[in-house]
Amino acid sequence: MKGKPTFSRPSEVILLAHGSGGRLSRDLIGELFLEAFDNPALAKLDDAAVLEVGGGRIAFTTDSYVVTPIFFPGGDIGKLAAAGTVNDLVTTGAVPLYLSAGFIIEEGFPLSDLKKIVHSLAETARLAGVSVVTGDTKVVNHGSLDKIFINTAGVGVIPEGLNISGANARPGDVIILSGTIGDHGIAVLSKREGLKFKTTVESDCAPLNGLAAAMLAVSTEIRCLRDPTRGGLASVVNEIAAQSRVGIFIDEKSLPVKEEVRGASELLGLDPLYLANEGKLVAIVAPEAAEAILGALTSHPLGREAAIIGEVRAEPAGRCVLISPLRSTRVIDLPVGELLPRIC
Amino acid sequence: MKGKPTFSRPSEVILLAHGSGGRLSRDLIGELFLEAFDNPALAKLDDAAVLEVGGGRIAFTTDSYVVTPIFFPGGDIGKLAAAGTVNDLVTTGAVPLYLSAGFIIEEGFPLSDLKKIVHSLAETARLAGVSVVTGDTKVVNHGSLDKIFINTAGVGVIPEGLNISGANARPGDVIILSGTIGDHGIAVLSKREGLKFKTTVESDCAPLNGLAAAMLAVSTEIRCLRDPTRGGLASVVNEIAAQSRVGIFIDEKSLPVKEEVRGASELLGLDPLYLANEGKLVAIVAPEAAEAILGALTSHPLGREAAIIGEVRAEPAGRCVLISPLRSTRVIDLPVGELLPRIC
Repeated sequence: MKGKPTFSRPSEVILLAHGSGGRLSRDLIGELFLEAFDNPALAKLDDAAVLEVGGGRIAFTTDSYVVTPIFFPGGDIGKLAAAGTVNDLVTTGAVPLYLSAGFIIEEGFPLSDLKKIVHSLAETARLAGVSVVTGDTKVVNHGSLDKIFINTAGVGVIPEGLNISGANARPGDVIILSGTIGDHGIAVLSKREGLKFKTTVESDCAPLNGLAAAMLAVSTEIRCLRDPTRGGLASVVNEIAAQSRVGIFIDEKSLPVKEEVRGASELLGLDPLYLANEGKLVAIVAPEAAEAILGALTSHPLGREAAIIGEVRAEPAGRCVLISPLRSTRVIDLPVGELLPRIC
Repeated sequence: MKGKPTFSRPSEVILLAHGSGGRLSRDLIGELFLEAFDNPALAKLDDAAVLEVGGGRIAFTTDSYVVTPIFFPGGDIGKLAAAGTVNDLVTTGAVPLYLSAGFIIEEGFPLSDLKKIVHSLAETARLAGVSVVTGDTKVVNHGSLDKIFINTAGVGVIPEGLNISGANARPGDVIILSGTIGDHGIAVLSKREGLKFKTTVESDCAPLNGLAAAMLAVSTEIRCLRDPTRGGLASVVNEIAAQSRVGIFIDEKSLPVKEEVRGASELLGLDPLYLANEGKLVAIVAPEAAEAILGALTSHPLGREAAIIGEVRAEPAGRCVLISPLRSTRVIDLPVGELLPRIC
């Protein structure tokens, strides 16, 4: 993996890599946030917190969206802000219900663009069956912010009987991916200043609660569910390996990658394993449930290219291994630098 | 009220005033957000949404914090991000339970400052008895953002039997303010570049769930509860007048204002009615409950200077009137421009 230089000692300033979803993100979370906020819900390090409220369980999550450009093939920052947070709720098995929306806007931003973005967010929320029930708008002086950032938080309800967490993978479990990787990353990069290349790849940005519901309708034997956004599939499998203290083996030849994504990645010196997705789920499931769950995925419009991509083993605990088509192996590491700032 | 020029026709770009909490904010919310997101919880326009979840009611709210400077007398952006969102939950009568925290940080931001801010947020959350259970960190390239912005969302539980909303004020109700106005606004302004003046005023920034609980312990006859942040007391009473279709009369001589705040306001050509507060509540209460609630406030460390500041009348519906010490009257309007960008 090519990229920016790595840093061997703790930095005294915040680097782009602290927001990459990679190693420096993990360190910042572990050394600062977990210690300062110190509570069991946060310490689980799942994409949404699971909380007891009034006799039931809710999921609660947040994400800020800073993608550039704000309009990209297949979506925009508004669609992303709705889908991304819905998908974080989905990773706990929750039925997403409500979103908040906090807009921070640069003075001088075109009102017509804001309208497009807000309507896109609203339409995506409607598609997912969630309501945007509370919000906030801040406007900052020209130059204090690049165009527009959006934060959404989400609340959902977790049905009884589900227990889905990155900490629940067990040796023997099967790893299923719901479709091709890298589409979002390549679609956004194709519109970056100074980096324009031709591609017809569109972002996969989509709310995935329908897809998750289709899986849960055939089996509740889902141990872990994640959406591989920034840092890509590589980050997600590393997080699960660390949380569950298991080894994760990914079979490279089974990974669905669009030809165009593969080509653009080679051109840019990027590895699709590390590229962001905004409409994919990684499910780690009990082996006896794998075929039924795969069937449910491939029968759904958003999961037609779903595939079994690997398995969970006891060793090497906390590590991920890629098995090449020629059966050689290499470790899949967390990304160290930040290749793609503001990808989501 | 002095300020920036007003705009007589709809702007085609976003102006600072769209984030002021004043008239353009109201128009943007009404004409864009309410229409696009279209749901009854949002349409109530309270500071937090009240939602049915699993047999009970929860409150859900969000705010982004963009204050500059990030460290100011009496607080910092971390303290503000915890207290501000706790206080928005409190305005529904909710017991605040959980916060999310989304950090957007400029590359190169000092790690030592981030640590101070995170610990300040954590300490304020602890003081309020809430847990920061989920979060997100994005880092953007140098120049894409001025230092650091924080979004927090909050979830609380609303006890049975409470029905508090800006829409519930009735003629004859009494208006109580929990303490002096304008402290936060003056404290932040005193540290602005090019605007430095000497003052010992500190921000009143504080979580108010304890203060609200003290009021609710003596009476549940609270109709409306608001924290007058950006746009100040003037904005809050205008919002309530519009939501409840009542006239609101404020007695100027009863308004608690620190001498130093009054002096600095005169110097800067500002009206304390429009200055932000981060540790005050406005309560509109049934007349028979007013004395008991005032007593509960003045017995609490954060409400010692509480006062009855006015009353609700049937007319002029939707308007607010200030009664001067000489008994002349003038309309209190929503702020039109934006006097104080990035005050919270």
